[in-house]
Amino acid sequence: MRACGHVYLVGAGPGDPELLTVRALRCLRRADAVLYDRLVSGEILAEASPVAERIDVGKESGHARWRQEEINALLISLAREGRIVVRLKGGDPFVFGRGAEEALACRAAGVPCTVVPGVTSAVSVPALAGIPVTHRGIAGSFAVVTGHCMGADRLDWSALARLDTLVILMGLARLAEIAGLLVRCGRAPDTPVAVISRGTLADERVVVGSLANIASEVAEAGLATPATIVVGEVVRLRELLVPGLGHDPATISSCLASALP
Amino acid sequence: MRACGHVYLVGAGPGDPELLTVRALRCLRRADAVLYDRLVSGEILAEASPVAERIDVGKESGHARWRQEEINALLISLAREGRIVVRLKGGDPFVFGRGAEEALACRAAGVPCTVVPGVTSAVSVPALAGIPVTHRGIAGSFAVVTGHCMGADRLDWSALARLDTLVILMGLARLAEIAGLLVRCGRAPDTPVAVISRGTLADERVVVGSLANIASEVAEAGLATPATIVVGEVVRLRELLVPGLGHDPATISSCLASALP
Repeated sequence: MRACGHVYLVGAGPGDPELLTVRALRCLRRADAVLYDRLVSGEILAEASPVAERIDVGKESGHARWRQEEINALLISLAREGRIVVRLKGGDPFVFGRGAEEALACRAAGVPCTVVPGVTSAVSVPALAGIPVTHRGIAGSFAVVTGHCMGADRLDWSALARLDTLVILMGLARLAEIAGLLVRCGRAPDTPVAVISRGTLADERVVVGSLANIASEVAEAGLATPATIVVGEVVRLRELLVPGLGHDPATISSCLASALP
Repeated sequence: MRACGHVYLVGAGPGDPELLTVRALRCLRRADAVLYDRLVSGEILAEASPVAERIDVGKESGHARWRQEEINALLISLAREGRIVVRLKGGDPFVFGRGAEEALACRAAGVPCTVVPGVTSAVSVPALAGIPVTHRGIAGSFAVVTGHCMGADRLDWSALARLDTLVILMGLARLAEIAGLLVRCGRAPDTPVAVISRGTLADERVVVGSLANIASEVAEAGLATPATIVVGEVVRLRELLVPGLGHDPATISSCLASALP
């Protein structure tokens, strides 16, 4: 009987292959099979061994091509054939990646499974667009939610509206609804919002506005998914942190010397 | 005149050197000088070039050895000498790392500065201890706060208490106060809590309890810093996800088939 293989649930980070971890890269290079999502770039897949089987289990927007149970079953059956299986997910596998469901399915089947955390898009995509999710005196807390399934789930938007920084993943299609909800829950309509489309990739685009106007600004710009939405005063730091957005070093010095923008 | 150098604000991840990103490792190997914090391990520092100057700017618990302005000034003066400077921070530089303050100081001084996001401890330390911060049907949101400066800051604990998962970094010394606050804000006293001490390192220890008893459990166990605190129903998944914690695969299958624990 062939020895059982192993499933690695690997975070691929936000998109840029250099934001893979050392362990993720090592797993990819050893993998016999790689199951990947729509959010994983070709550049990252290219890091896998040339002989590794590559299986696209990404979900089409709207209707799922692969059901979760089918992905679980495939992970288990490949591992039972003795293979090293990498389940590659955009960002971190446990941040809205359904990674724990896959880990539980492996455990229930007696298949060894290891999680390899990744650089989550929730923090890194804003960071690379010049927006820190925390900042002394401005944001001492941040929350992360997904814009998917807003109707069905039980997110407490009145609590979310009161946190300093709110990061919403996969929320582009519901941006108007989310912005409206936050305002109805008491967040000021002029609260800054940034929407970062295809963050860390070559075609990244950023639109900045307020809760009042972000939905129309983004519609006008025609932003593509995936998008990361950041709500909160930290968005204002982008103008200071990103060269070429209108603030020269002298202005920044004087802003810092007095108070933040 | 010598060309200006460059400051890289680099996330070192949660501790395990394999959770450095590929870019972080590349920056470390090119660095002429590395300024590091108390949370950065010797194993990670060993990845820097042997000739790089290593400067410990870590803060002693209680009183700061280096003031933030001194660190900023050192980054700027080293870069102005034409050096490649890596500012290495535990976790991610923009998650309570004061990274944005350093980036702003560099920008104000006209010194080129690049942020290299890291694997944040807020997500990865729980994940590697068998606790996903999100899970379908259990946690559709998570928030991250720091336990430092609780008195002085303006964290809205009544909002934080209503989120599914709450991760508290640097909160070990105030654990009893935090647990009490969450209960007074309406969170059930039997809400599960995990405290993960020295997460991802060889001497990692985990204590699990409830808001009602976690402070005494942790005091009895004598846990060391740094610690990551996770509050919420996701903590219950640890028993199912970590082999050897009492659930065999058959039990997990039946738990999954009915409902989660």
